[in-house]
Amino acid sequence: MQTLKVDLGERSYPIHIGEGLLDRPELLTPHIVGRQVAIVTNTTVAPLYLERLTATLAGYNVLPVVLPDGEAFKNWETLQLIFDGLLAARHDRRTTVIALGGGVIGDMAGFAAACYQRGVNFIQIPTTLLSQVDSSVGGKTGINHPLGKNMVGAFYQPAVVLIDTLSLRSLPERELSAGLAEVIKYGLICDEPFLTWLEEHMDALRGLDPQALTLAIERSCAAKARVVGADERESGVRATLNLGHTFGHAIETEMGYGVWLHGEAVAAGTVMALEMSARLGWISSADRDRGIRLLQRAGLPVVPPEQMDEACFMAHMSVDKKVLDGRLRLVLLRRIGEAVVTDDYPQEVLKATLVADYPALVDQLRG
Amino acid sequence: MQTLKVDLGERSYPIHIGEGLLDRPELLTPHIVGRQVAIVTNTTVAPLYLERLTATLAGYNVLPVVLPDGEAFKNWETLQLIFDGLLAARHDRRTTVIALGGGVIGDMAGFAAACYQRGVNFIQIPTTLLSQVDSSVGGKTGINHPLGKNMVGAFYQPAVVLIDTLSLRSLPERELSAGLAEVIKYGLICDEPFLTWLEEHMDALRGLDPQALTLAIERSCAAKARVVGADERESGVRATLNLGHTFGHAIETEMGYGVWLHGEAVAAGTVMALEMSARLGWISSADRDRGIRLLQRAGLPVVPPEQMDEACFMAHMSVDKKVLDGRLRLVLLRRIGEAVVTDDYPQEVLKATLVADYPALVDQLRG
Repeated sequence: MQTLKVDLGERSYPIHIGEGLLDRPELLTPHIVGRQVAIVTNTTVAPLYLERLTATLAGYNVLPVVLPDGEAFKNWETLQLIFDGLLAARHDRRTTVIALGGGVIGDMAGFAAACYQRGVNFIQIPTTLLSQVDSSVGGKTGINHPLGKNMVGAFYQPAVVLIDTLSLRSLPERELSAGLAEVIKYGLICDEPFLTWLEEHMDALRGLDPQALTLAIERSCAAKARVVGADERESGVRATLNLGHTFGHAIETEMGYGVWLHGEAVAAGTVMALEMSARLGWISSADRDRGIRLLQRAGLPVVPPEQMDEACFMAHMSVDKKVLDGRLRLVLLRRIGEAVVTDDYPQEVLKATLVADYPALVDQLRG
Repeated sequence: MQTLKVDLGERSYPIHIGEGLLDRPELLTPHIVGRQVAIVTNTTVAPLYLERLTATLAGYNVLPVVLPDGEAFKNWETLQLIFDGLLAARHDRRTTVIALGGGVIGDMAGFAAACYQRGVNFIQIPTTLLSQVDSSVGGKTGINHPLGKNMVGAFYQPAVVLIDTLSLRSLPERELSAGLAEVIKYGLICDEPFLTWLEEHMDALRGLDPQALTLAIERSCAAKARVVGADERESGVRATLNLGHTFGHAIETEMGYGVWLHGEAVAAGTVMALEMSARLGWISSADRDRGIRLLQRAGLPVVPPEQMDEACFMAHMSVDKKVLDGRLRLVLLRRIGEAVVTDDYPQEVLKATLVADYPALVDQLRG
């Protein structure tokens, strides 16, 4: 088992990473205050891991809250099911809410924990690669609004994050790829040597090689913990973690939440950020193509939906949380391994990026 | 103008109290960061003060969000109207949400500010006595759930609280009385000399004497600021501010939110807390009667609803936020001017308190 620490003063917490951690009560119980525990999970994850986690928590008064599965349910109506469950079972403010599932479960359970009786104890047990390397670390929680993704939420840190790498064995291939989009992101924004390592180990990762997976998760969580420790509330460097996300959120919102997986939309969005960085002359077209190739090898879409034109992207992006006083800030690459957040770019370059011929760009990679 | 300070480290903020403050932009603008401002108010307050506040904020991009009036609307559906308005008007994370209204508006606008894009700037302009002396200070925000009051919310501090005492001139008499319930509370829990002052000035207060009102508001806010500064997240002494509230919340929930005003329910609940403290032998029956008489003179109900029996009270109180690990903690009086939070009382005394003959108790006061 490896343990990292997210350094946030009195809200610091450990991230444990290893095989079979779901069966180790001693990693959880120091972080539970009362006798009441609510496990928030979904209809896909519950049959796989709910019984095991409940057995690990023997002696506690465990309330399972099983939600429908998918980003399409990341809304108030589903969140309300958590409050309904907690209140019906008379959970008090010393209860502990545990998120058992992917990013959607973590975001919703975390937001419920942040709001229930104005804040109760919270634990993350992410079971997808995407949530393990990204959303479970850093305290961002929330739900979607019909007019924008993650528009309602809270910064709320867990007491501990438990990553059992064995849970990836049950993960559909498409979701493994979606998680790899965020792993590749860390290489692009702040860790060029890791990007090279990923190029060498992409086949091992997709083949679920345990050693490669553990290293990729550790390195990703370490990068995220570093950035979050420096800027918890995203007033600066933390925004670089959103490489590809502004374009990607537009894709997710336009297509309807859950049609494209978050990681898939981020992958196509990252291609757009690479293209824009190249058009600005900040990275070479070879760097851009290097990123696109790696995303492709991870099994990810690298072309935005054909139906989305410039006006469509702009309409969605104008409600992005990175808009400040009417100016759209974007995460772009100064070079491979160094991201910046900027609103200092010619509007024509953004426009050209939105209307670029991505299918042709990808075709030439084959040549 | 008087200015108090709530001392919460980097989240400290001023409370300005005085006549005509609504027209003074220099008290607000230092606390607004961007150009976007959303004024959240309701259909009763908007015709009285929205135009004036909008004029005070000349030069800002002001979005009015006018909600239906009443505790019955303190729910998710109404909260959603705030998010809808902010998103439709493209307000970004540097927007400022201003609550212009009573406690319900303050709680909902504050919770919306806490959650919108994971937290935006917030200002309180309370227009009722109850919100001026209680809910606008201390950062408690939230909405009701069908199974319990204020069960979903956040601790979220404003940047400034602006109390314009002139706004009390438009307040219905019943709501002035409701506010006096909380004013009397401060005397009972921590300020015996203030209780004596209130006995001397109750007629002046109900007659809207400006000097008496200003002093009562100052003294109440100072007490609240002191307690909140010592215990922001209610792990200890802050809970004493809930004298009468556990019984009162049961009354509000059972009768349907908004049928009894919050202050009215607190008044009847305070009578029950006085009765229980007397039954425990902590205060004399003369002390109890002193409290009841003052509440009566403030124009408040001092008898719980006839229809509520012991089982009914217990069912509601078992979901109170002060329940910890199954034990119900109550705020009671050790003596006039000193409250305690305790779960150390014989269950029979609570039971006797719930079934006591309050109409008879009040009748004997006339004798």
